[in-house]
Amino acid sequence: MPKGTETIVYSLGDGCSLADVVVGKTYAGTVQGFAAFGTFVFLNSSTKGLVHKSNMLTSHQEGDSILVRVGNVRDNGNIDLEEVIITSYQVQPVICKKRAIQLGELKGKVGRRVMVECVVAQIKQTSGPTIFTLVDASGSENAAGFVEAGKRAFPDASQGSVVRATGEIMQRGGQIQIELENLTVLRGPEADEVLAGIEQAIDARAEPPEVPLLVESEVLEKLRPAMRKIAKIIRRAVFTAQPILLRHHADADGICSAVSIEQAVISLINESGGDYDSDYYLFKRAPSKAPFYEIEDIVRDLDYATRDNVRFGQKMPLVLLTDNGSTEEDLPAMKMAKVYGIPMIVFDHHHPDEIVDQYLEAHVNPYHVGGDYGITAGMLGTEIARLICPSVDRQIRHVAAVAGVADRSEAPERSRYLELNADRFSEEECKRIALALDYIQFYLRFNDGKELIKDILDLNDNHERHLEMVKLLEDEANIAITDQVKTCMPHVGHTVLSNGAHLFTIDVEIHAHKFTFPPPGKTCGEVHDRLCQQYAGEPVVTLGFGPDFVVLRSRGVFMNIPRMVRELRDDLPGAGVNGGGHLVVGSIKFVEGMRSEVTEKLSEKIAQFSTVE
Amino acid sequence: MPKGTETIVYSLGDGCSLADVVVGKTYAGTVQGFAAFGTFVFLNSSTKGLVHKSNMLTSHQEGDSILVRVGNVRDNGNIDLEEVIITSYQVQPVICKKRAIQLGELKGKVGRRVMVECVVAQIKQTSGPTIFTLVDASGSENAAGFVEAGKRAFPDASQGSVVRATGEIMQRGGQIQIELENLTVLRGPEADEVLAGIEQAIDARAEPPEVPLLVESEVLEKLRPAMRKIAKIIRRAVFTAQPILLRHHADADGICSAVSIEQAVISLINESGGDYDSDYYLFKRAPSKAPFYEIEDIVRDLDYATRDNVRFGQKMPLVLLTDNGSTEEDLPAMKMAKVYGIPMIVFDHHHPDEIVDQYLEAHVNPYHVGGDYGITAGMLGTEIARLICPSVDRQIRHVAAVAGVADRSEAPERSRYLELNADRFSEEECKRIALALDYIQFYLRFNDGKELIKDILDLNDNHERHLEMVKLLEDEANIAITDQVKTCMPHVGHTVLSNGAHLFTIDVEIHAHKFTFPPPGKTCGEVHDRLCQQYAGEPVVTLGFGPDFVVLRSRGVFMNIPRMVRELRDDLPGAGVNGGGHLVVGSIKFVEGMRSEVTEKLSEKIAQFSTVE
Amino acid sequence: MPKGTETIVYSLGDGCSLADVVVGKTYAGTVQGFAAFGTFVFLNSSTKGLVHKSNMLTSHQEGDSILVRVGNVRDNGNIDLEEVIITSYQVQPVICKKRAIQLGELKGKVGRRVMVECVVAQIKQTSGPTIFTLVDASGSENAAGFVEAGKRAFPDASQGSVVRATGEIMQRGGQIQIELENLTVLRGPEADEVLAGIEQAIDARAEPPEVPLLVESEVLEKLRPAMRKIAKIIRRAVFTAQPILLRHHADADGICSAVSIEQAVISLINESGGDYDSDYYLFKRAPSKAPFYEIEDIVRDLDYATRDNVRFGQKMPLVLLTDNGSTEEDLPAMKMAKVYGIPMIVFDHHHPDEIVDQYLEAHVNPYHVGGDYGITAGMLGTEIARLICPSVDRQIRHVAAVAGVADRSEAPERSRYLELNADRFSEEECKRIALALDYIQFYLRFNDGKELIKDILDLNDNHERHLEMVKLLEDEANIAITDQVKTCMPHVGHTVLSNGAHLFTIDVEIHAHKFTFPPPGKTCGEVHDRLCQQYAGEPVVTLGFGPDFVVLRSRGVFMNIPRMVRELRDDLPGAGVNGGGHLVVGSIKFVEGMRSEVTEKLSEKIAQFSTVE
Repeated sequence: MPKGTETIVYSLGDGCSLADVVVGKTYAGTVQGFAAFGTFVFLNSSTKGLVHKSNMLTSHQEGDSILVRVGNVRDNGNIDLEEVIITSYQVQPVICKKRAIQLGELKGKVGRRVMVECVVAQIKQTSGPTIFTLVDASGSENAAGFVEAGKRAFPDASQGSVVRATGEIMQRGGQIQIELENLTVLRGPEADEVLAGIEQAIDARAEPPEVPLLVESEVLEKLRPAMRKIAKIIRRAVFTAQPILLRHHADADGICSAVSIEQAVISLINESGGDYDSDYYLFKRAPSKAPFYEIEDIVRDLDYATRDNVRFGQKMPLVLLTDNGSTEEDLPAMKMAKVYGIPMIVFDHHHPDEIVDQYLEAHVNPYHVGGDYGITAGMLGTEIARLICPSVDRQIRHVAAVAGVADRSEAPERSRYLELNADRFSEEECKRIALALDYIQFYLRFNDGKELIKDILDLNDNHERHLEMVKLLEDEANIAITDQVKTCMPHVGHTVLSNGAHLFTIDVEIHAHKFTFPPPGKTCGEVHDRLCQQYAGEPVVTLGFGPDFVVLRSRGVFMNIPRMVRELRDDLPGAGVNGGGHLVVGSIKFVEGMRSEVTEKLSEKIAQFSTVE
Repeated sequence: MPKGTETIVYSLGDGCSLADVVVGKTYAGTVQGFAAFGTFVFLNSSTKGLVHKSNMLTSHQEGDSILVRVGNVRDNGNIDLEEVIITSYQVQPVICKKRAIQLGELKGKVGRRVMVECVVAQIKQTSGPTIFTLVDASGSENAAGFVEAGKRAFPDASQGSVVRATGEIMQRGGQIQIELENLTVLRGPEADEVLAGIEQAIDARAEPPEVPLLVESEVLEKLRPAMRKIAKIIRRAVFTAQPILLRHHADADGICSAVSIEQAVISLINESGGDYDSDYYLFKRAPSKAPFYEIEDIVRDLDYATRDNVRFGQKMPLVLLTDNGSTEEDLPAMKMAKVYGIPMIVFDHHHPDEIVDQYLEAHVNPYHVGGDYGITAGMLGTEIARLICPSVDRQIRHVAAVAGVADRSEAPERSRYLELNADRFSEEECKRIALALDYIQFYLRFNDGKELIKDILDLNDNHERHLEMVKLLEDEANIAITDQVKTCMPHVGHTVLSNGAHLFTIDVEIHAHKFTFPPPGKTCGEVHDRLCQQYAGEPVVTLGFGPDFVVLRSRGVFMNIPRMVRELRDDLPGAGVNGGGHLVVGSIKFVEGMRSEVTEKLSEKIAQFSTVE
Repeated sequence: MPKGTETIVYSLGDGCSLADVVVGKTYAGTVQGFAAFGTFVFLNSSTKGLVHKSNMLTSHQEGDSILVRVGNVRDNGNIDLEEVIITSYQVQPVICKKRAIQLGELKGKVGRRVMVECVVAQIKQTSGPTIFTLVDASGSENAAGFVEAGKRAFPDASQGSVVRATGEIMQRGGQIQIELENLTVLRGPEADEVLAGIEQAIDARAEPPEVPLLVESEVLEKLRPAMRKIAKIIRRAVFTAQPILLRHHADADGICSAVSIEQAVISLINESGGDYDSDYYLFKRAPSKAPFYEIEDIVRDLDYATRDNVRFGQKMPLVLLTDNGSTEEDLPAMKMAKVYGIPMIVFDHHHPDEIVDQYLEAHVNPYHVGGDYGITAGMLGTEIARLICPSVDRQIRHVAAVAGVADRSEAPERSRYLELNADRFSEEECKRIALALDYIQFYLRFNDGKELIKDILDLNDNHERHLEMVKLLEDEANIAITDQVKTCMPHVGHTVLSNGAHLFTIDVEIHAHKFTFPPPGKTCGEVHDRLCQQYAGEPVVTLGFGPDFVVLRSRGVFMNIPRMVRELRDDLPGAGVNGGGHLVVGSIKFVEGMRSEVTEKLSEKIAQFSTVE
């Protein structure tokens, strides 16, 4: 018999069900068991027929392969089979692709048996069944597999496996769940094909909508592609049940940026049908003590992430950094994150060190496109948030204005954001909100103060409470600042440097209240602002000294703080100097025993910068 | 037909059930649906009858209004209706008030359908149903409403709504729960009436029993009405499922006061049938670092309360402050609490500033009625606790005695409380308990140490363990004190002031162990006590200096610390002075760089006070 | 009738069931209730029969004793009884010992009624039933008793009670559970007998297997009995559901010791069929800040343990201390633990003070058998871990080598452990692992960093990640050390003492970076190591001063630090000196104001020790 005309024997794929069984065709089956009246044969892992003993030709053992012809499919779903014996045949797999149902459609199918093709996002062993979180292009759902109390079901599958799962759709405690009958790990081309399909669909779904910028901005326009890239990665994390950890500088601008993203991510989680409470365990906002991702912070984050991974099978998180993350100081943390395969994203407005980029999935920074610090993190966060979830637009658009005011942006975008929101918040009100944020964050330490912060930013649909809270916090902040300045001022030292700059010094450790608002940096800033008013039009540098640090503020002096730090390190090798900053603000650390040497050298160096005439 | 003789058509209220349906009467109904044999008609949201097709006069659509006469109510609860057509009639509502069942009676009605009229205390969305905590005059119970997985049921209702709910009483996991069929928000006069009924009953129930004082006391007798007021507010919170947060000074007297209240509130929760474990989530005791309600504390408390409110629908808490809360320094916290509508209560024995009262629901303070510091917070707490829950009386009555000894009360009540408990605890034992409390609280930091503290106060029915623990802690405390004093004494400075007072100074920062028991204030006190013994009969002032603070103890000198603080602020504007205290004890803060100036001025001022001859 | 021939009446014990009832025999029963057709009689607490009214001879009330003859036991389990009246008889108890089933066998008996004899390990009240954790020789299981919502079932039983329980085996959420019908507290000889049986069996089961040491070692060989004793106590705790709290010194050696035990205990919990997740709540590893069990730590541990005991009925924990726990400084904590009946075990290599032993269940210490510090805690921990659970042997055997290198052991065992693991880890690699541990623990503070630490010790089956992580941490540690040393070195003071020793001093407070890695002790060590290289062959002492402490490192000087501390205390009574150490390393604390006096005296004393020629 020529090859082309061999009998065809079908092999029913695991995705197939009763409806795919065709009467009259011959299938390769497996003997499952014996009854008095005949032999049960599996056509695939979930479809079974009976060969009546009168239709058995040979004798078999459990597990034997057998060829069977479908005699009949009855109304009740029973399949009547007949054994056939063919010596030369060609096997043709029946792949029932068309039957794979999208997870997003399960809601309407409670009580039905379905087949899905997915990626495993999380595997959580419970005291009873094993819970698999499955993700496909349309969303994610849980599936429960059970072998024995507390024992791992379908141990072949691991996080990231591409699987074909069959089971019945149940509603438990109101949640949809697949009670798994079978879960097969796909491999090779089949897996690739399924994965590619899911990836492609998720990719398309993750593509941010086309949302125009809130304000006209050359810099932001240039950053659009990078912002879209970030929004896409974040949307993708939401669609694939990856936890998100958002770390940010604990000042008003950093809070504005982070809260915008928080609003967008939580809305997207809810809009895309997340489980109840999943916004609490899939998103976490954490203010950082330092203006960079400290080793202590990454170590704690890794500690938690690895525990959750091992104990609850949760994915390693996507880490977002905003209002920090773009400098060399972040490198150790980034390297550690990389060891654990944690993707990182930065959107920041600090002057970036190029070296960080090799550790980042994406990095939005105005300096990349000729912009500067004036495009604050909060502006970036607000615009990215709108790309993540456009429905939050009206709710958060004023946040960019608060951020601009908070960080004293001198970019033209500042006034554009203010104008855009002028009907709701005046510049004065934005200032007060920013001060209220700084004040409450000081007392929140490194808690996120979720609802309180939302009240201050008027994101809680309670405008009255917002107004009362901002007023109260602003008043308290101003009382504290006034008292601090009153205490400091009599102790301010004054020299005129050779370059004509006024150099003011204040010891913020011994001539200011400690561990209270305003902290040293802000105390120095407040003193500086008052001295600038007093010496209007003249160049002014104010140094706030602690025992082992100095905070610098300047106006009208072309200081280069990074250069001074480098020179101090060379001049005074035993002083342990490091630090940084930009034109008008910075801080330098040193060892306590070298304070007077550092002070002296520092004054000399400041005297060498040119000043504004 | 004259108006008065129009046919009456009844409108069956939602509270009514089968038993309220009267055969022969005509009702206004709504067409619910159609069957082969007739039309179903709702008489109210839960009572349905059938109009057999032979009794239908007109044709209808779902939702149509229809008039029906009740032909029969069968034994199985089926209602036979007949359509009637009347052109002129008068509608009379049937309001089935009498059928509202008290929540306290539900236990005996498992499996039955009931109607209740309540106030909504909490609304918690779960992944399945929405759980409403309902409160009426008799108690509180949970009710579950379900529309769809994780979706809010009965969205009209919010916390504080007055509602009429119908449903079946189920027992789930042993707890009673109403499975809601309907929940209607009442408005206008109907709501007012129900609310007034509940309020009146809760008010009556919250009224504390008539319990006489433990000891004779003119001051406490005058404070009785205010103490009853506080007890009533607390009882009311317990009866209405409002969480209680009790903050207190972290010393022995503050602990005594707070623990008395804790015992009473937990007993009351349990006696009034609280859910299992509800004593853990409805009551929290939290020692405060500072002797007032610090901004950091209120910010953390608000952070938690607002989160619980949003995430779990929990009521904002009632905040109690004891052994602090009566001075100006508490104002910022009180203002913040007010913004969030958090009621506050203070029972304290520090000299009160009148200004706080506008922020308080109630304030018990011996100074209000001519008493003083000698009526300690622990005495107040013990007496109030007995009003909250009289059954704790025998258990806690010695706590007042410990408090009196702890705070060295010189009021006559001290010895009366001691006499009352003389059969169980000698004065010496009370002193040892007080020292043990101070010692362990130092190491507990700001944890409440619930069971340990109860052991030390002998509230755990394990007298043996109580004795061992007190002995051990007292021994350790005394070893530490002895070592500290031995280290300090050689460094004590001594001057005799112009007013004849001995002025002793000790630098507790550099001549004492730090971060260990005894802390600076107690170290200074111990040194002072020894010097007073040494210079028996003479006026003695001891100053314990830290880098930016000084602790003051005095005997026989009529110091006015608040006045000195005010003068120092004026004399030394750059010293950032603040602080307070009373005749014999106080503390003053300043900025480190002005320590010698403050020291000098302070000595001058102390020299000006008159001394005991 | 002679005694021996009296009629025998059987008393059916509570452990007996239907199968033990013999037709024709007479039993002593109790009237349970009445029906129209007869009287129900209990033969024991769970076996009931009926006396048909025709077979009743006398009239009775509920609760009356009655003698009955078994007429028939029907197929459906009904027992037909007849009342009999006998005036003289002998009661013979039927004790159905044989029917008590081992908890370990319950798995195969789902749906069946069983009787077990056990000890109650935990009683947890829930909002529904009361959950009893029962323990017998074969394992532990939960049993649920229900009377009323949230009400304590079987209140006679308390933790530690010996009980006989009957009930049906259910599978709930996949876990085996006994639904209790009856739970009787056994008393007197019966309890003793059951308890003795369980104790004997647990004792036998807890006996560690015979596992030879990993390396040849005279000292370890002598410590074997004590190590076996510790392993047995730990195994026993696992088998009896007692929580284990393991506190350890937060350095590389302490971590090595503790992690070995952690691996063994968790494996044993899982191997012995612990509930899912029970390894998380029954075992806790907690690094300690101080090199001893501080009061603050024991107070926190007691606070948690007593809460869990009261709220969740959990047993008080077994406390293990490793790499600390053997000195006088641990006494206060040990005394507190004793008050609460908490057993403690120490395995340490610090020079032990004999006084601690009276507080310990067991204490392994090389000094007890003529060994010294060179047998590090990590070596002890690794060997004990292998006795606890031999299956972890291959996984953890390199941990002892890392520990030896970490603590610079000079014992011959160090190289033996290295050789044993030479195929997997070179000495250089062990050093790098040790440095990585120290570095990450510094940033973990007092968290255990469970998975991160396991990665660094290559215990997570991810060798690649292990290598990357160790390399990264080692690099970062070395960068930090290099920077610190560079900063310190220019400030090192140098004197040659009269005994020829070089005395170097460095102020680690003002001439080193603070609050960063390396901390003061390690900074001093690194400086010392470099000076030792520079002055190779000469005696060197390096003192690292802080404001109120000094860290000592020495080479070639026979220092006796404890003696110096004693002398300084006598010489300078106001200096508050304490501290300790051994030949080459130590630390001394004092009050800040006496630093120069202490420094001077200390130099004098060091100059008096003999040096290596």
